[in-house]
Amino acid sequence: MKAMGAIPAGFGNDEGMLMIGNKRADALIVDGGSTPLFVYDMDLIRARVAQLRAALPPLIGLHYAIKANPLPELVARMVPLVDGLDVASVGEMRVAIGRGGDPAHVSFAGPGKQDHELDAAIQAGITLNLESEGEARRAIAIGERLGITPRLAVRVNPDFDLKGSGMRMGGGAKPFGVDAERVPALVRLILESGALWRGFHIFAGSQALDASAIAETQAQTMALAARLSEEVGSAPAFVNLGGGFGVPYFPGDVPVDLAHVGEKLSETLDSRADVLRGETEFVIELGRYLVAEAGVYLTRIIDRKVSHGEVFLVTDGGLHHQLAASGNFGTVVRRNYPVAIANQFGGEVEETASVVGCLCTPLDRLGDQVGLPLGEARHLRPAR
Amino acid sequence: MKAMGAIPAGFGNDEGMLMIGNKRADALIVDGGSTPLFVYDMDLIRARVAQLRAALPPLIGLHYAIKANPLPELVARMVPLVDGLDVASVGEMRVAIGRGGDPAHVSFAGPGKQDHELDAAIQAGITLNLESEGEARRAIAIGERLGITPRLAVRVNPDFDLKGSGMRMGGGAKPFGVDAERVPALVRLILESGALWRGFHIFAGSQALDASAIAETQAQTMALAARLSEEVGSAPAFVNLGGGFGVPYFPGDVPVDLAHVGEKLSETLDSRADVLRGETEFVIELGRYLVAEAGVYLTRIIDRKVSHGEVFLVTDGGLHHQLAASGNFGTVVRRNYPVAIANQFGGEVEETASVVGCLCTPLDRLGDQVGLPLGEARHLRPAR
Repeated sequence: MKAMGAIPAGFGNDEGMLMIGNKRADALIVDGGSTPLFVYDMDLIRARVAQLRAALPPLIGLHYAIKANPLPELVARMVPLVDGLDVASVGEMRVAIGRGGDPAHVSFAGPGKQDHELDAAIQAGITLNLESEGEARRAIAIGERLGITPRLAVRVNPDFDLKGSGMRMGGGAKPFGVDAERVPALVRLILESGALWRGFHIFAGSQALDASAIAETQAQTMALAARLSEEVGSAPAFVNLGGGFGVPYFPGDVPVDLAHVGEKLSETLDSRADVLRGETEFVIELGRYLVAEAGVYLTRIIDRKVSHGEVFLVTDGGLHHQLAASGNFGTVVRRNYPVAIANQFGGEVEETASVVGCLCTPLDRLGDQVGLPLGEARHLRPAR
Repeated sequence: MKAMGAIPAGFGNDEGMLMIGNKRADALIVDGGSTPLFVYDMDLIRARVAQLRAALPPLIGLHYAIKANPLPELVARMVPLVDGLDVASVGEMRVAIGRGGDPAHVSFAGPGKQDHELDAAIQAGITLNLESEGEARRAIAIGERLGITPRLAVRVNPDFDLKGSGMRMGGGAKPFGVDAERVPALVRLILESGALWRGFHIFAGSQALDASAIAETQAQTMALAARLSEEVGSAPAFVNLGGGFGVPYFPGDVPVDLAHVGEKLSETLDSRADVLRGETEFVIELGRYLVAEAGVYLTRIIDRKVSHGEVFLVTDGGLHHQLAASGNFGTVVRRNYPVAIANQFGGEVEETASVVGCLCTPLDRLGDQVGLPLGEARHLRPAR
């Protein structure tokens, strides 16, 4: 038997049936019409936002990076909970604005923005987090052609990274943002062009569980924003301090100590340089941290097989929906995300089984030799 | 600079512009309307099929596993070239039959077939490659309910694997097929039920470049089919010998020696057991081997960036279209697939550059520090 991550807190149990948002999993499947099914509990998301608001200094705004889950119905429910939305494509921008996001509080980051995307973003009045000097020149030219003043922030490739993060987004050669030493010249170009300079977006990494590392990176980010602002000789409207708060997916993972992050961030804010003490607003941008632990992927066991003594629970889901769970997304060593038998929720471990998807490839494994209650195949209509 | 795989043979060069199927890449993009774009050269596919027909014994039928590329227009063009199609879902079945595949020569493999899929397959008259005893019982029951005799083959989990294969599909506990020692009992169950037993499907692995390993596996597969047939006391209608012919994607990869495979397969056929000398038909099932090297993914460079001295060519494509190229699909160590600058095709290496996609994640890298001619950003309309 191999270890797996802990089931996130907050899910109920009705006599052995998983409950999501006070509804039984079997009833949710009837409502949804079939499996596989993604279900999200908005109460858990609201609780997570409240927890963050309580821990973080009041000066810190909270943005939702909708690439974590751009489902339009979910985005609509996020809008009143957060202070802004971050998008990574024009498609996401349309969801964000279409579902009630205020364009003045929507920003668009991502390398390789195309001219038609810059055009649509400038027309919509959202902020572009510029990834390069070339992108800046294109945005300025498009703004001139449209006769609209573009709102331009600079994404900075910081000269440090977020230690212990699952993905490093700074500290070396990167396709994201502009190297810190070239940022002042770019900001001057923006100011001279007559565009509206909206500040800095500095993202040093993601998926870190260590509160001290997050706090240290926030302090470095604040210092970098101050240094760049002083070089420019102008205060930024916004400083997006990035995110990086990790989700405890795997065995042994410990949730981020939010109280510690909040305490240290207060100190960082209190001791910030004068250039950042005026009108500058500060934002933390979170994606999966807000929504991941509130979501459940429900699949049905189609076949229960034994091969050479090993049990396989073959589901109607798979890596086409849950690539990360198959170990094929950004991890070198495959580890087990939490898996449960929904109709035996909280039941004793009775066997070791591998949970696989319906694709015809050995890569399609959602749980590898995990300890579970006995899982039975269920069919929507009886076979006999 | 890191190595990358060789550009497959067969692509032309019109004064530095990549040609695919006698058309210039820039003209293809105008035809397609935008980038990214997938383009396939059917002449290269026809040449590959002809090469296989010439090398393999005439007794061997050739099937196309359409999961390698289920594009309906491509499947329609494959139908006249091959002797049958293999599908892995009802969606693929509908493409196969809808584009001219004869149901009598279509088979459906894959774990976790749902009742509605078994139902549709039996009604369509295709062959089900059964993955378990449970699936067999469900298929038989559905056939009885429909009043249609199902065509049932047994997918065997062989007790050996294809050595040197990129993915092992046999030789141990697997979610695919039925362990060899339980197969005779399952075939008897099928025969007793009155269903039409269509033989064996034995797939030991995929993506092997070593002709000797492929030949050895084919000999083992033939021996296993003979042993199982003798135990059953009945000759199978079909033996699907699997596939496993690899595509040379990476630096140092050498194409499969088809002549050697063909020669050894002739010997294997000549020396086969008596039980397989009657009406039994033999089939090899290939997917990517038929189509992969005939396909090109065309993306446009949106931004050319330098960060800490490293060059990044940011494209409008990415891992959402080309997951394998990003190193996130079944490989532990990332290696570079072949990449070229289409409008400087065949040009001298002038710099080391990383080719990245437009997604906001460091995983989105299509080529890592490869040697290329200078790549320039191209925009569909000028920025100024």
